[in-house]
Amino acid sequence: MRMYDLIMKKRDGGVLRRDEIEYMVREYTADHISDYQMSAMMMAIYFRGMNAEETSALTLAMAHSGEMMDLSAIDGVKVDKHSTGGVGDKTSIALTPMAAACGVKIAKMSGRGLGHTGGTIDKLESFPGFDTSLTSRRFVRQVNEIGVAIMGQTADIAPADKKLYALRDVTATVDQMSLIASSIMSKKLASGADAIVLDVKTGSGAFMKNEEDAFALAKEMVTLGRMAGRKTVAVISDMDQPLGFAVGNALEVREAIQTLRGKGPADFTALCMTLGAQMLIAGGAASDEREAYAMLRHSVEDGSALKKLAAFVEAQGGDPAAVYDTSLLPAASLVREIASDRAGYVSHIDCQEVGICSLLLGGGRETKESVIDLSVGLVLHKKVGDYVAAGESLATIYANDEEKLRQAAERFLRAYRFAVEPPQRGELIKGILS
Amino acid sequence: MRMYDLIMKKRDGGVLRRDEIEYMVREYTADHISDYQMSAMMMAIYFRGMNAEETSALTLAMAHSGEMMDLSAIDGVKVDKHSTGGVGDKTSIALTPMAAACGVKIAKMSGRGLGHTGGTIDKLESFPGFDTSLTSRRFVRQVNEIGVAIMGQTADIAPADKKLYALRDVTATVDQMSLIASSIMSKKLASGADAIVLDVKTGSGAFMKNEEDAFALAKEMVTLGRMAGRKTVAVISDMDQPLGFAVGNALEVREAIQTLRGKGPADFTALCMTLGAQMLIAGGAASDEREAYAMLRHSVEDGSALKKLAAFVEAQGGDPAAVYDTSLLPAASLVREIASDRAGYVSHIDCQEVGICSLLLGGGRETKESVIDLSVGLVLHKKVGDYVAAGESLATIYANDEEKLRQAAERFLRAYRFAVEPPQRGELIKGILS
Repeated sequence: MRMYDLIMKKRDGGVLRRDEIEYMVREYTADHISDYQMSAMMMAIYFRGMNAEETSALTLAMAHSGEMMDLSAIDGVKVDKHSTGGVGDKTSIALTPMAAACGVKIAKMSGRGLGHTGGTIDKLESFPGFDTSLTSRRFVRQVNEIGVAIMGQTADIAPADKKLYALRDVTATVDQMSLIASSIMSKKLASGADAIVLDVKTGSGAFMKNEEDAFALAKEMVTLGRMAGRKTVAVISDMDQPLGFAVGNALEVREAIQTLRGKGPADFTALCMTLGAQMLIAGGAASDEREAYAMLRHSVEDGSALKKLAAFVEAQGGDPAAVYDTSLLPAASLVREIASDRAGYVSHIDCQEVGICSLLLGGGRETKESVIDLSVGLVLHKKVGDYVAAGESLATIYANDEEKLRQAAERFLRAYRFAVEPPQRGELIKGILS
Repeated sequence: MRMYDLIMKKRDGGVLRRDEIEYMVREYTADHISDYQMSAMMMAIYFRGMNAEETSALTLAMAHSGEMMDLSAIDGVKVDKHSTGGVGDKTSIALTPMAAACGVKIAKMSGRGLGHTGGTIDKLESFPGFDTSLTSRRFVRQVNEIGVAIMGQTADIAPADKKLYALRDVTATVDQMSLIASSIMSKKLASGADAIVLDVKTGSGAFMKNEEDAFALAKEMVTLGRMAGRKTVAVISDMDQPLGFAVGNALEVREAIQTLRGKGPADFTALCMTLGAQMLIAGGAASDEREAYAMLRHSVEDGSALKKLAAFVEAQGGDPAAVYDTSLLPAASLVREIASDRAGYVSHIDCQEVGICSLLLGGGRETKESVIDLSVGLVLHKKVGDYVAAGESLATIYANDEEKLRQAAERFLRAYRFAVEPPQRGELIKGILS
């Protein structure tokens, strides 16, 4: 078999066989196929696409390119949750303790943030001492003991995807539906959970700008999960403005804790309930959405969800006291209000700009090597549809550097658009596929 | 400027600006742009194509990536001739002395053979002592003195094309019209001639299998030449069967010499006349085809073309006696007839198979490093339309190794197809574009 022939086959609109895809992934991972041949293949796939069988074969080949986590030592249905990423998306911090408090076993691998989007691992590290580099053994034990564990993705999980994604990232071959779906799902399959609940974001702040694409990606991933024998559900949710109010690592953790106390932002709480219900059903803890919602609400009301977060933080070496006293979380030295220079109804908030503000403050990574400041960020006070008077505060900014604060505040004002009339508000939940 | 953005632009159907193409070619030649980004770009171009301005910009950028030959010290109009390649194509050997004998200045760079097609440089080296590695100074002086010089293409001519072609060759991005046209024309423009006569082959033995593609390529190259201020003419000619009878380096030289004596194969002679007429007109030696044909015929009849070949061979260090006594050319030790195992009219001769027979005998290069045997090859006795009785000789095979001879002879029989009725014969000359 020659990679040249496979490139030509795909270029000419042919369908790659399973063994051809396995060969390609195996030899590329082993550095026996060059980057330049693989990038030509990726561009050919960009134009020609892949059918369901090809995408499934690619996903499985990448999943099997490294360690396949064995979670069989965990009793019951193991549920994983994944978000395609957005700004202010602290869902995992609040949702996993809620679902675990309801009896779902959560064994999750997460990533770090890059660019204008944050990552769950960084956010969790806001708890002083929190350790996400668990061994598989400790990971399994912790899920058995307290029902939830989150670890950083190891280099051994789907190394083929890691190598291929890095290549796609520099050759303009990222945004192809089947390649995106297989990249996400290869990691999820390798991570070993029995059920996967996906949060596919759509809107100006999401990778999938329009709903049609988001539904297509969701459908592709659900199909891939099913073909691999995993129960898979996708929730398509809005990312046309930041989720909740807080953007920035410790600030988001604080908001997640507020949510577990029943005092979270309406949109964020609603998303946690929707995703949580799917996790409870997938994990066999609830039989339908009504029952699931009641259980989730109860876990907040009786404090069991918050207690679960504390147990989870403690189990991974973090200080559980910070769950009850958020002043123990990293705090910024400079706190300033950003006053609106205009009046009107907020018609749009540019997620990417808000994310970049957090990045400018030092809260995100420009490159994989950047060191981040967990304390900085923004807490919005006005969201789409709210009326703002001139001079009223749009957000509170948290910083540790006057110059960075100045730059971020200036940029932040540009993220808002105003209208004279109240705008139409989109639905938070666009749909659920399974 | 970032290569990433240029790949995305082309991927999305955009038109690359001249400065963007110049940046891309310059930085790729300097190894500042990676092969994997360039191969993604080539695949994007494969799918999206390039318009005339983009193709011209690419051609000029590649031409200017190395030395631009300065032929201004040669008096008059310098004419170059290029063939897109075929089997048995010894045109340059016969044609250039004919045109030079008629007063056209021919300053030509040629290549070596690779795979099943031969190269002019190899063929010329059949003349003992013939040297094609001329300095520019000697090249210019020779054209001024005797009207013709052919040198091997130096590494300094269009190095960007050389690097890019090697990449395209392993990433299935060779057969895209604009890329083919710019590759050929960048070398022709860098070679410095004022006028370029192109022989675009079409048919089963050519790169362009169908006439439509051949005309499209011819048109694209003529446009590129014109945009660069060079008079450019393209003849579209048949390569559905080998040209002439001889295939193999010294055997082809012998046939070219026969042609200069007025005893060449009909098809080959006709092609030389057609291309020669265009060269005479482009070079200002004749005002129309009728005059050009008369001059070319005269150069054969009065022996001046043959004399010009001898002068040319002598000027480049070869033995001119071999022009008059072809027994001085390399000769094979084994000469065998290949008898037909069937009877009928020859309906098709597979050029590639015939070329591979010559390759198997040692007459061609499997890799760039192969050493070739100039003496071996085949001389066909039957061409398309000829009647063959069973047992009659289809060709004479020239070899230096019994085993290779056996293999080549066996394979040769498979190159012929027969029919009960005489087949339709295609036109040799499909058209002329200028």
